Amino acid sequence: MNVAAASKIHAIPHDLPLDSGQALVGAQIAYETYGELAEDKSNAILICHALTGDQFVASDHPITGKPGWWERMVGPGKQIDTDRYYVICANVIGSCMGSTGPASVNSGGEPYAMGFPVITIRDMVRGLVALLDGLGIEQLHAVVGGSMGGMQALSLAANWPERAARVLVIASTARHSAQNIAFHEVGRQAIMADPAWSGGDYYAGEASPDNGLAVARMAAHITYLSEEGLTEKFGRRLQDRDSKSFGFDADFQVESYLRYQGSGFTQRFDANSYLYITRAMDYFDLAEEHGGKLANAFEGTSARFCLISFDTDWLYPTSESRHIVHALNAAGAKVSFVELSAPNGHDSFLLPHDQLDRVVGGFIE
Amino acid sequence: MNVAAASKIHAIPHDLPLDSGQALVGAQIAYETYGELAEDKSNAILICHALTGDQFVASDHPITGKPGWWERMVGPGKQIDTDRYYVICANVIGSCMGSTGPASVNSGGEPYAMGFPVITIRDMVRGLVALLDGLGIEQLHAVVGGSMGGMQALSLAANWPERAARVLVIASTARHSAQNIAFHEVGRQAIMADPAWSGGDYYAGEASPDNGLAVARMAAHITYLSEEGLTEKFGRRLQDRDSKSFGFDADFQVESYLRYQGSGFTQRFDANSYLYITRAMDYFDLAEEHGGKLANAFEGTSARFCLISFDTDWLYPTSESRHIVHALNAAGAKVSFVELSAPNGHDSFLLPHDQLDRVVGGFIE
Repeated sequence: MNVAAASKIHAIPHDLPLDSGQALVGAQIAYETYGELAEDKSNAILICHALTGDQFVASDHPITGKPGWWERMVGPGKQIDTDRYYVICANVIGSCMGSTGPASVNSGGEPYAMGFPVITIRDMVRGLVALLDGLGIEQLHAVVGGSMGGMQALSLAANWPERAARVLVIASTARHSAQNIAFHEVGRQAIMADPAWSGGDYYAGEASPDNGLAVARMAAHITYLSEEGLTEKFGRRLQDRDSKSFGFDADFQVESYLRYQGSGFTQRFDANSYLYITRAMDYFDLAEEHGGKLANAFEGTSARFCLISFDTDWLYPTSESRHIVHALNAAGAKVSFVELSAPNGHDSFLLPHDQLDRVVGGFIE
Repeated sequence: MNVAAASKIHAIPHDLPLDSGQALVGAQIAYETYGELAEDKSNAILICHALTGDQFVASDHPITGKPGWWERMVGPGKQIDTDRYYVICANVIGSCMGSTGPASVNSGGEPYAMGFPVITIRDMVRGLVALLDGLGIEQLHAVVGGSMGGMQALSLAANWPERAARVLVIASTARHSAQNIAFHEVGRQAIMADPAWSGGDYYAGEASPDNGLAVARMAAHITYLSEEGLTEKFGRRLQDRDSKSFGFDADFQVESYLRYQGSGFTQRFDANSYLYITRAMDYFDLAEEHGGKLANAFEGTSARFCLISFDTDWLYPTSESRHIVHALNAAGAKVSFVELSAPNGHDSFLLPHDQLDRVVGGFIE
């Protein structure tokens, strides 16, 4: 796939230093923009995407043809109003939608594969900051992100505090818990157990580790939904049949749905990228980066923060957002926080929600 | 492995009818007993095992050499006192420790593999009842089970109400939820995605679908533990190293632990059995079997029931036990119920817990 062709490309004009001590040479960032940048460049909003997200926040996905993943929130007259703001959304490094990642070609003319350096959330943000530099944007009106996007927003606020006036973090966390790491490890093991993974060197071959990637996606997908949301949506209802088959087909709707999620995902995502990005998330611990105290990460910040959590999100529960709010309070930062009620667990940040719209719109204003 | 040799075997002298409409011909039940059966056969306690459990409840496992899985609860002078009671624990049909399952040889002299009929929890109990018949035990002093063992205890009480005077159900449910099914489906897909699974026909070959089975076990294992238990036990602590490796080794203790759980499991369990038993659990809906109303399942029962749940069990949360208690109340059954506080989620029923001991001992008395 040549998805890069669908997006604008920023070639980073310098080596990108990484937390591992390595550097990415000749890296590029694929990005989309919406709206017009004001002459004083004061109206830019950076939206950071989640694990399996991409830069197509408000435009059709070039592979699936589906609408942008946050099209309901971003556009002319919407909460993040592209008539007023210049909205930027960039594919993170390590991903597979045009920014440099394991599927990209290294200086030797071969795909990096597992030779790609292990990156961190802060490294992803280094890539985003390089893009802002390229665009000549010194300070964002706001940085916005849900889930892993929220981690990037927090990392930007902590490490480049002058680059964003507003920081909006939705359904996110300042560190990955043991349970978060455990679920990701299952996904990685599922990919690596697939013989087609071939140690990551599958780009030239016929086969990709689609089976393993699909299993990884299925396991992760369960964590994005709430138990009650699953019960409401599927319960124990059967799929296209009146009674159980006494076999191993997808008898239940929830099985059919999961299989669909798994196989659909493999059409648009690279298995090695899944390994690298989950690793970056598992490594994420903002306090650890700042002497073991989260408040240190935000010392002296003048940005305004807004944290939003969902009551049924068990992946990054409200307690994680509250933990961040306490640290921001301790650092003397301006912060507002709301826990929203929503039936759909972690995925709620992507779904229609009037209160979410109002909080986002009010904060961005 | 010839684990059957380690256990007593009951050859079922009749065809075992199954919910699917099929029947198991020439089936056998492998079982262990502890203590002495009273002359009037009134002191028998049947303990039903969980998904990956077996008949070795209070004696060493013949493959792993580890102590019985509930040895702390069952034995001379213990809560389930083998000086007083004759304790029976049998491997369920569909499993792989000596009772007839997919690895068993069919009438054609070949392993059943995926030709094994899909079974239900009630079918497992049919096998157990056949064993009781063989032992001449008309009524159990008690039937006891945790997790899937609790499902069997409930099924026995509902379908053979005269066979048990006491029914003890721990950390269990009367039906599998959409989320329960979803996690099992991930495990099944992980096994079936493993090329070594070969459509289930791997018994004669060199390779077994160990990779897929390990991933299935890892995903399931997370559901057996609580988020706070994982945090307490592992947090974000690193495994045998001072800093992150910036690679894909098991940097975190929780990763190492999960990998160990996954690979250890493949030494003692058959992948096809995992498919069949998870399917049986997903099919389990005791209300559905009884006209859609759970109270119907217990109509006219004279048994005493005791339900125990754990506050951190998110696999079969307290609400599921309460749902059963309400149905038992509606049916006019004698029932006691307690939610115990324990940090370790679903697995708490297998771990030391003084209050659990007291409740079990008091109810069995």
